[in-house]
Amino acid sequence: MIKRLCIIGVGLIGGSLARALRESAFVDRIVGAGRNPEHLKKAVELGVIDRYDTDLAEAVKGADMVFVSVPLGAMGTVFASIKDSLGVDAVVTDAGSVKASVVEAVKAATGETPAWFVPGHPIAGTEQSGVEASFPDLYKGRRVILTPTGETGTAAVQKVRAMWEAAGAMVNEMDVDHHDEVLAATSHLPHMLAFALVESLARMSEQREIFEYAAGGFRDFTRIASSDPVMWRDICIANRDALLTVLTTFRGDLDDLAAAIKDRDEGKILSIFQDAKAARDAFDG
Amino acid sequence: MIKRLCIIGVGLIGGSLARALRESAFVDRIVGAGRNPEHLKKAVELGVIDRYDTDLAEAVKGADMVFVSVPLGAMGTVFASIKDSLGVDAVVTDAGSVKASVVEAVKAATGETPAWFVPGHPIAGTEQSGVEASFPDLYKGRRVILTPTGETGTAAVQKVRAMWEAAGAMVNEMDVDHHDEVLAATSHLPHMLAFALVESLARMSEQREIFEYAAGGFRDFTRIASSDPVMWRDICIANRDALLTVLTTFRGDLDDLAAAIKDRDEGKILSIFQDAKAARDAFDG
Repeated sequence: MIKRLCIIGVGLIGGSLARALRESAFVDRIVGAGRNPEHLKKAVELGVIDRYDTDLAEAVKGADMVFVSVPLGAMGTVFASIKDSLGVDAVVTDAGSVKASVVEAVKAATGETPAWFVPGHPIAGTEQSGVEASFPDLYKGRRVILTPTGETGTAAVQKVRAMWEAAGAMVNEMDVDHHDEVLAATSHLPHMLAFALVESLARMSEQREIFEYAAGGFRDFTRIASSDPVMWRDICIANRDALLTVLTTFRGDLDDLAAAIKDRDEGKILSIFQDAKAARDAFDG
Repeated sequence: MIKRLCIIGVGLIGGSLARALRESAFVDRIVGAGRNPEHLKKAVELGVIDRYDTDLAEAVKGADMVFVSVPLGAMGTVFASIKDSLGVDAVVTDAGSVKASVVEAVKAATGETPAWFVPGHPIAGTEQSGVEASFPDLYKGRRVILTPTGETGTAAVQKVRAMWEAAGAMVNEMDVDHHDEVLAATSHLPHMLAFALVESLARMSEQREIFEYAAGGFRDFTRIASSDPVMWRDICIANRDALLTVLTTFRGDLDDLAAAIKDRDEGKILSIFQDAKAARDAFDG
């Protein structure tokens, strides 16, 4: 149980957690915090939070759990603002898509790797954003990865795990660097490809006509290119090294396929497609 | 109206056209043809076709419309088999995803660019295949591109157009080469990227774990990697030149993005993502 939850950044991610924990009666009071009072007022009207404060230091006072769901670039500022106002038993966790950069930002802001901070990442979301898009089932059956460091308190990890399980999620733990490598491959690289493809096609001369004849496969393939550009710029910078590593591997594989097409190497092309189909079918099955 | 429609290759594409034309009462009798009698029996049982023949020359006799929906690699053989058995008023069209290669195959098989052949391509399909997956609404509101050559008969084009409109599709005409360039960009290139990405990830060491943490965005992005490997190998070979051209353009753009990430060029990254999002949002809107 959480007595007072403070959510810093009440958008799709923070708002959906609030709704889920209310539904499962895992929380008594929810305080929202952020920079924009209009968004926070909306969150109160929607019943997502009970009250709000645009002063982060005030907002976290008395909270036993603080959930930070702000862009990666804002993490350092948030932790610097709240660190001296946290209660002695308060636990803080976050929703950043890259973990090493958040752990570094927290260290830079607090001068330590605090026992009260549990780095976390819910693998969930939509191309929508904002509290209006939030819904209580966003995390149901989805994975949440926690990446505690050597300094993170065991009780703090347990408390964050219990919160996510109350929201319906399946919780796993892994190393910070391992998380960033896995996500570079399964999430950050696909987003780069989708953004790069749509931008590439948009610059081809007859762009309007090109999109006119695109079908359902194209629609699905490029849906993630509608994601928030600022958030994804931050992710690229924050996970630069792991992302460049998988980009290089992928480019090599794409070059191999291009060479096989150029050489009309039917056996090689078929083998690549069959391996891909088998892996993708297994993923669905 | 079609009196007797012969469908060569009764799978998802051919079966769905049959169902659509039956529903709109645009056809009297439908004869199925193909190599596999088990599949054709199934199509009769499902009510998709009235009868079948595994001898293509026999199957087309008396048909006023012939629809060829076989893999690109089989087009030449099919046209060689049927050319001497077509009635004087028969019109033939196809569903091949690449048009130049079909036009060439027909020319090689018949010794001419026949007035009775209307090259066509319905921009529709799913990752499923087979007559069991066919449904009458597959073409509703979808585009069909016809690519008549200078030799194609005007009345033949009108008859094929009327057929597709009866199936609910919107029909456009364009040049053969233009079709192949547009489809290379919006369909063939995305499939290459999806196949290459999934195969690349599957070969990374901890593949099972990698897929375990993949989310909804990855699912959508890679869905087309479940498509039929043989069909896509044929498309790569048939549309080799146009595909290699767009692959090269895309690779240059991907390299630019990788360089911007390497240089931590936040402005450049954001600009690429914003342009992509704007184009993708416009596509949906």
